[in-house]
Amino acid sequence: MSTNTTKPLGSFERMKSMNRSTVLNTIRLHAPLSRADIAKSTQLTPPTVGNLVKELLAERFVRETNIGPSSGGRKPTMLELDPTYHCCIGLDISSTTIKGVLCTLLGDCLHTAKQPLPSNCTTEELLQTAYTVTDLLLEKKQVDQKLHGIGIAMHGLVDVEQGISLFAPNLGLHNIQIRERFQIRYDTNVMIDNDARAMALGESWFGQGKTADSSVLINIGRGVGAGIVLQQRLQYGADDVSGEIGHMVISEDGPLCSCGQRGCLQAYISGPAIASIAESQLDDNASSPLRSQKKPLTGLDVYTAYQKGDALAEAVFVQAGKRLGIALVNIIHTLNPSLIILGGGVSLAGNILLPPAIDIVKRRGLTQKAKETTIVLSTLKEKAASIGAVTLLLESLFQERF
Amino acid sequence: MSTNTTKPLGSFERMKSMNRSTVLNTIRLHAPLSRADIAKSTQLTPPTVGNLVKELLAERFVRETNIGPSSGGRKPTMLELDPTYHCCIGLDISSTTIKGVLCTLLGDCLHTAKQPLPSNCTTEELLQTAYTVTDLLLEKKQVDQKLHGIGIAMHGLVDVEQGISLFAPNLGLHNIQIRERFQIRYDTNVMIDNDARAMALGESWFGQGKTADSSVLINIGRGVGAGIVLQQRLQYGADDVSGEIGHMVISEDGPLCSCGQRGCLQAYISGPAIASIAESQLDDNASSPLRSQKKPLTGLDVYTAYQKGDALAEAVFVQAGKRLGIALVNIIHTLNPSLIILGGGVSLAGNILLPPAIDIVKRRGLTQKAKETTIVLSTLKEKAASIGAVTLLLESLFQERF
Repeated sequence: MSTNTTKPLGSFERMKSMNRSTVLNTIRLHAPLSRADIAKSTQLTPPTVGNLVKELLAERFVRETNIGPSSGGRKPTMLELDPTYHCCIGLDISSTTIKGVLCTLLGDCLHTAKQPLPSNCTTEELLQTAYTVTDLLLEKKQVDQKLHGIGIAMHGLVDVEQGISLFAPNLGLHNIQIRERFQIRYDTNVMIDNDARAMALGESWFGQGKTADSSVLINIGRGVGAGIVLQQRLQYGADDVSGEIGHMVISEDGPLCSCGQRGCLQAYISGPAIASIAESQLDDNASSPLRSQKKPLTGLDVYTAYQKGDALAEAVFVQAGKRLGIALVNIIHTLNPSLIILGGGVSLAGNILLPPAIDIVKRRGLTQKAKETTIVLSTLKEKAASIGAVTLLLESLFQERF
Repeated sequence: MSTNTTKPLGSFERMKSMNRSTVLNTIRLHAPLSRADIAKSTQLTPPTVGNLVKELLAERFVRETNIGPSSGGRKPTMLELDPTYHCCIGLDISSTTIKGVLCTLLGDCLHTAKQPLPSNCTTEELLQTAYTVTDLLLEKKQVDQKLHGIGIAMHGLVDVEQGISLFAPNLGLHNIQIRERFQIRYDTNVMIDNDARAMALGESWFGQGKTADSSVLINIGRGVGAGIVLQQRLQYGADDVSGEIGHMVISEDGPLCSCGQRGCLQAYISGPAIASIAESQLDDNASSPLRSQKKPLTGLDVYTAYQKGDALAEAVFVQAGKRLGIALVNIIHTLNPSLIILGGGVSLAGNILLPPAIDIVKRRGLTQKAKETTIVLSTLKEKAASIGAVTLLLESLFQERF
């Protein structure tokens, strides 16, 4: 979504803007670098590099650091990214909470903030809560830091181009003009995307996906969705529906899904699905401690019971892991990513969920490499979506697209 | 796969090569054009365009045509692609036959040739048959035409980089060094890809996919595979396994698939699967004309029976259409392509297969746009793979990647 369409391909402005982004990204990835190093690495001319670096220094995106080794003449001044000036806010709007981070341009988290959403939350209440989290983070921002922008990861269907939350199913809200409202209030860059896509981008920059050319992040929580990164580009599909694998059909006549259909992946492996499957089996499991638990159960209740040794809870997670495995096989045989990352609340049960899933992949993968697809748990964990939201801004800054 | 990795990004050679490809593609898409039109459209300088056009004229990729309208000064000479000189051969290696086409640079088919493969065909027999088809086409080539290259679409797993057929399941052959052998014999450009991917590329250039930014072609024949085009680029995945949707799991405990697993899409909708499902139901269908048919049945037998009004045959196709619909839903909710194209032998039964499939998509699509995903039948039909094979060469010629 960061394709620069306003400046025509081949125009001077477009070229300059692309070169600037290239220089900045080269410094980000390989600092400390001298101007000569940058010219060599980017194949831009030394005067072009000199001018761009001058601009980037003035805007405090980069800074001069120590003196580097001489390759004959005067010792060169080295450059690195300046992580002290520009900062970004990332928000993760889930169905119960808004979590926020204040990060440097390197993705380092300086501060966090969090606010619960009121129950039966309205659009205005959602926005006010998001403002509160943003304001808490802005209070923590140093006076000599500059806010580069606000990234927002929102569950449900998002119109990325328009910056609108089209439908947030777990809140029952439609058409929230998030970007417009934030831009009016904060007068800064605002980018919004679906939570799974933001997480996928965050993982591909700062988490498990750093070295992968293609990866799929599966966010398993109240809902199930995926963010797909191919050739290091986040995928949206024709209508931003790409990655809605919660509604991949696992079994035509399976359990009822929140979408009204039967047998969707989400109806097998989401937190509420795991809770409801466990609850439906309590009558046959007299010894399960879940029988005395307050109803309706949550996914966390089932996981806690599993940790305490409950056989029913274990069996429910193993079954969910197998269904997840089928979804993984389908993703591998469709997209063949080099890496699959599991994130979201339910992935915290990865120790019990992952082995049966990997077993299915090993059994059903079409080739040896397909069988051996790397499948890991998110390392960004509960910050994955908010750091992912920051990464939306960073991608647009550092990787202007050709 | 046509990414130019030998010339470093930003180098003069790389830039020239990219510019040349851009000029050639601009002429292909918008001819007749004057040199000034090309400069305007590509934003290259007039001298750069002049030099590149001079080269392309000398190599007879383009030709001068009529005189265009004057915009003040001398009337300009217009340019267009020269379809009379360079030509390409495309081969489609299936499990029973090798089909070939001789095409112009515009994808127009000049000649066709075809040879059956011997039964229990060896690697050498396969190559000799492919040579025979190629030689038949070369005989038909005009003496003043130049062969630009040979593209090969091969069923099964293909190592595109190395030009090797890793595994052709329907022939039971492994590790055929197709590109090397063809290069030795014909001393020309040789490109090889999986049949479904070649078909997808062919459709995106010359068939149903021409105006789509993203499309998925599903090849349903003896096997089932897909070619995925996203942002007009063919997708390969990490290990060329992308598009192996024949082994998408539709039902964990479904019928046995040729891969040894159960419930793969291929075990429901491939030609042999349709035949075998029909055959298994003959005992309960006393009136079906398929009972008196020679066994084992083929997919074509079942289709012929359906055309003659057999209710069993119709029911089998409707069931297959529903399974196909589930696969389409899974593809839409993963990739969200703007277009899905059905090709391959079984797609000739599209009139009976497609309505139940589309019905499932309309019922299960997550959004209105997902429900309305355009799903069509290939218009290149039995030439889809061979024209697709030609398109592998054309993509590399006209669309050198940035």
